[in-house]
Amino acid sequence: MTDLPDTCTRVLLKARPKGGVPQAEHFELAEAAMPMPGPGEFLVRNEFLSVDPVMRGWVNVAANNVTPVAIGAVMRSFAAGTVVASRHPGYAEGDKVMGMLGWQTHALSDGTDIRRKVVEHDLPLSLSLGVLGLNGLTAYFALTEVGAPRPGDTVVVSTAAGSVGSAAGQIARLAGCRTVGIAGGPAKAALCLDAFGYDAAVDYKSVDFPQALDRALPDGVDVYYDNTAGAISDAVLARINKYARIVICGTASVASWQPWPSGARAERHLLNKSARMQGFLAWDYESRYEEAVARLADWVRQGKLAYREEFADGIASAPDAIASLYRGENMGKRLIRL
Amino acid sequence: MTDLPDTCTRVLLKARPKGGVPQAEHFELAEAAMPMPGPGEFLVRNEFLSVDPVMRGWVNVAANNVTPVAIGAVMRSFAAGTVVASRHPGYAEGDKVMGMLGWQTHALSDGTDIRRKVVEHDLPLSLSLGVLGLNGLTAYFALTEVGAPRPGDTVVVSTAAGSVGSAAGQIARLAGCRTVGIAGGPAKAALCLDAFGYDAAVDYKSVDFPQALDRALPDGVDVYYDNTAGAISDAVLARINKYARIVICGTASVASWQPWPSGARAERHLLNKSARMQGFLAWDYESRYEEAVARLADWVRQGKLAYREEFADGIASAPDAIASLYRGENMGKRLIRL
Repeated sequence: MTDLPDTCTRVLLKARPKGGVPQAEHFELAEAAMPMPGPGEFLVRNEFLSVDPVMRGWVNVAANNVTPVAIGAVMRSFAAGTVVASRHPGYAEGDKVMGMLGWQTHALSDGTDIRRKVVEHDLPLSLSLGVLGLNGLTAYFALTEVGAPRPGDTVVVSTAAGSVGSAAGQIARLAGCRTVGIAGGPAKAALCLDAFGYDAAVDYKSVDFPQALDRALPDGVDVYYDNTAGAISDAVLARINKYARIVICGTASVASWQPWPSGARAERHLLNKSARMQGFLAWDYESRYEEAVARLADWVRQGKLAYREEFADGIASAPDAIASLYRGENMGKRLIRL
Repeated sequence: MTDLPDTCTRVLLKARPKGGVPQAEHFELAEAAMPMPGPGEFLVRNEFLSVDPVMRGWVNVAANNVTPVAIGAVMRSFAAGTVVASRHPGYAEGDKVMGMLGWQTHALSDGTDIRRKVVEHDLPLSLSLGVLGLNGLTAYFALTEVGAPRPGDTVVVSTAAGSVGSAAGQIARLAGCRTVGIAGGPAKAALCLDAFGYDAAVDYKSVDFPQALDRALPDGVDVYYDNTAGAISDAVLARINKYARIVICGTASVASWQPWPSGARAERHLLNKSARMQGFLAWDYESRYEEAVARLADWVRQGKLAYREEFADGIASAPDAIASLYRGENMGKRLIRL
């Protein structure tokens, strides 16, 4: 067994935000005695903690598809690390794992919270939380299974420079589609073109957004990969083609669902265009994760799938991490490096 | 050739309604010399003219999936009748046909506007415009292909007592589903239970609509067959189950799309429930019409598929017919009997 410190550090949920985005003050750091694995358990030293938009939902009690994190509990999150002690037959010291290990320096596991063993030892472990993790898997399955792109289709992606959006746009390009990215601000729009190979990029914060969107979409929209909802989606929906597929993957531009917000009714667009709008959850494809990771990893090795990571250092940076994400400051997958 | 009168009567579009429902004053009756078929043509004596919600869209210039009816032109509509003169090799005197023959007593055709020859001679010809026509075909394909009901599913239908809704509800019941109808007013709600075999019916005009909907949906909603959009849909969407399918078949409760109305955003429901919302157009299934009509006709013969028809007599009743439909006075498929 590796030499271990006497204590570990955890980030606990202290209070719930009022229906919105959790801020630093909703969390607190706590020291605890280092846990020791019992029979059938193992200890993971977390190396990277994930910061994802979906975590906003996990701290709220509003209707959602998951149980909220309890007050006083370790903040739920994906994390990746190394097994440093094991009394579990399936996990050995030195194994790299990714799973729901939480915002903490060390996590005790019985294996049920592990998503996968990371076997791409030639690639950085942090990728298992990004382009080779839930972000990449979400982009891969949501685009290919729900978006069903065909060569020559125009595929529009919102939050196009984000960790999910940038993967979705590149996978669409690999499928032979023309890709149009929507992002906030000129820096992110430039990133769409320069780093992620979009054929066109539109800054939704620009004053001529509707006109710019028209210019970028001379042939309308066949697939809309949406991470935003809100006014961006209303604009894209008004430009869909017959049989368009709209992938609902996130609602980042809606700050709160209490009260439930209104927007331009989608029904008439869907009816006029025989179009489909479908919500996507990556869990639904869990049985096919390894197949997809292998494909994504090959694209990364071949230089066909670019990614960006932004690291905050140390567990003390965790409490502000979700708020920072929603302030739109990120230019890549956000990770906390321990 | 049958003896024919010297003139025929047509209903012409005189003016466009301002984005809404056409009223009697938007049409005018006109006499014309009886047309005679040239080579490759035939003359149909219309016996029944159809009155459908979709006709509202045909007289408006708003974005839609069809070319609007021109001012001064015969009002576009489905109609069914008998071939009374023919110089077309594919159509003989006495043939029964259904097609886009317009609001007129007699229609000259070259066959391109004919949807099908009516071969169910044991059943009333009027059914070819209702339960064995576009209404029944729409219900059949939209429910089975888009709604994809499984035995035991709860299927909710809006405008449940209407000609499309009542067929959709019954086809869902035949598929082994529990069916819940939403209709306006106690008379239509009673019709849902008594005539169309719904397991529960909810009057959306009642003051306790949300509570009544909850009582009718102890197990949530697996399929929502929607003909309305608007507040009814907002209420149903809030009650969908995981993997729910929402069929967008009509938007009867939205009086106008200029300006485009707002409503509760659907994205979060679709995302939380991995649910699908899809627009349906019956034309997309035209190659399979005969297969579906044969199945629907068998159900009618076996007494498993009930229908209601309401006849207005004489072509002079046509101009007010669409307005009357939208006043919600109808308790069955509306037809003009000539």
